[in-house]
Amino acid sequence: MIFVTNDDGISAKGIRSLVEVAEEFGDVVIIAPDKPQSGMGHAITISNPLRLNKSVLFPNSLAYSCSGTPVDCVKLGIYEIMKRTPDLLLSGINHGENTATNVLYSGTMSAALEGAMENIPSIGFSLKDFDANADFRATQDVARKIISEALKNKMDQHTCLNVNVPKGVPGEIKGIRICKQAHAFWEDRFDKREDQFGRPYYWLTGDFECVSDETDSDIYAMGEGYASVVPTQFDLTAYKAMDNVKEWKL
Amino acid sequence: MIFVTNDDGISAKGIRSLVEVAEEFGDVVIIAPDKPQSGMGHAITISNPLRLNKSVLFPNSLAYSCSGTPVDCVKLGIYEIMKRTPDLLLSGINHGENTATNVLYSGTMSAALEGAMENIPSIGFSLKDFDANADFRATQDVARKIISEALKNKMDQHTCLNVNVPKGVPGEIKGIRICKQAHAFWEDRFDKREDQFGRPYYWLTGDFECVSDETDSDIYAMGEGYASVVPTQFDLTAYKAMDNVKEWKL
Repeated sequence: MIFVTNDDGISAKGIRSLVEVAEEFGDVVIIAPDKPQSGMGHAITISNPLRLNKSVLFPNSLAYSCSGTPVDCVKLGIYEIMKRTPDLLLSGINHGENTATNVLYSGTMSAALEGAMENIPSIGFSLKDFDANADFRATQDVARKIISEALKNKMDQHTCLNVNVPKGVPGEIKGIRICKQAHAFWEDRFDKREDQFGRPYYWLTGDFECVSDETDSDIYAMGEGYASVVPTQFDLTAYKAMDNVKEWKL
Repeated sequence: MIFVTNDDGISAKGIRSLVEVAEEFGDVVIIAPDKPQSGMGHAITISNPLRLNKSVLFPNSLAYSCSGTPVDCVKLGIYEIMKRTPDLLLSGINHGENTATNVLYSGTMSAALEGAMENIPSIGFSLKDFDANADFRATQDVARKIISEALKNKMDQHTCLNVNVPKGVPGEIKGIRICKQAHAFWEDRFDKREDQFGRPYYWLTGDFECVSDETDSDIYAMGEGYASVVPTQFDLTAYKAMDNVKEWKL
């Protein structure tokens, strides 16, 4: 059984494209947010109840929309709907890339990380194209290949895969590279305006800046026309920094 | 200048307790959510504008409440309010522990990670006590010690500290240990009930389960009566898993 979710919401073209591929491999269950949840990171809903509603958007699979975040969808899927561990969890295809530190802001990748916590082989897919009607065919080809290998091979425990694909039609993608997360950051800026009452409001904007030129990073691979695959973990311990802090007088 | 934020909201006792300590070390600027934001992880607000309002809750410091998430507060603080890099970013004191994988769900720690991304020495503090009127004095003692050392020493680039303190009065904490993030997980369950119209709703609940007995983990140290300090990073690359995936036929 393959579990599919996303963060752009159940009616996005990206999740339809991913379900099409997933259905080639077996039974599919879809539980996805009922509205866009981009940028929700690893948020969970604690102080409010959640709703699940059967969806008719996927005639060949069991599908539910959920009022919560992507991580809520994973938890509800495993503990309330499937009642057993799926063979694979797929998240996406995201409209927009999730390279570098975007992995932390991304609901798509947080759903995959939540799957890894539950010991489910999990993969997040993202296409570098924000268009609601983006061409997902090349990403579908990449997903087909990776899903096939993920079902044949064993993924390391407590890890998932972060897959990003450059914009382009099938045939334009040069290949698939195993990479590390780039050291790149948002140079955040806020658009400050005044509302109709003269009160200020702030709207997040910004530029993405790659501060390293390492050739084994996901951003580098994408720039060269390759799809990038970053094995991703939820152990955030900075092991190399432990010796430094151990010398502090605490 | 010391920047203070949290995820329980600007009126929580935890942030008041942290600001009291921070003001012993220099000028303090507070930008914190105007309502509780627990469990928001690294969420950012993309599709809505944000509001900032001056707060009178901290007579000795400049303070603003913000309509967004903890990470929004950090971004607004750096790019709109301070317009320069603070010497230190402190997040908390959280009402409730943020050991193990809770670091991913935690707004407190996501704010600290966002600070690390901006190259600000950043520390998240959490007390293992959910009580709104918890006794923060022992955590204040721990925070005083760690802040003092953080200002004297250099923190490794791209890392922050995750500090957790057991419940207890001053003198009961046995000491401070440098630890790694425990392999522990939420065994999630949902409380399923019916609303007044007979429609089901689900409310997240669950038990926290430590699946490892390693003696160098944060949960182990806390169990022994020590405060735990985990150096924490935002590079999620699972370097050890790369060789495995490189053998797949991609």
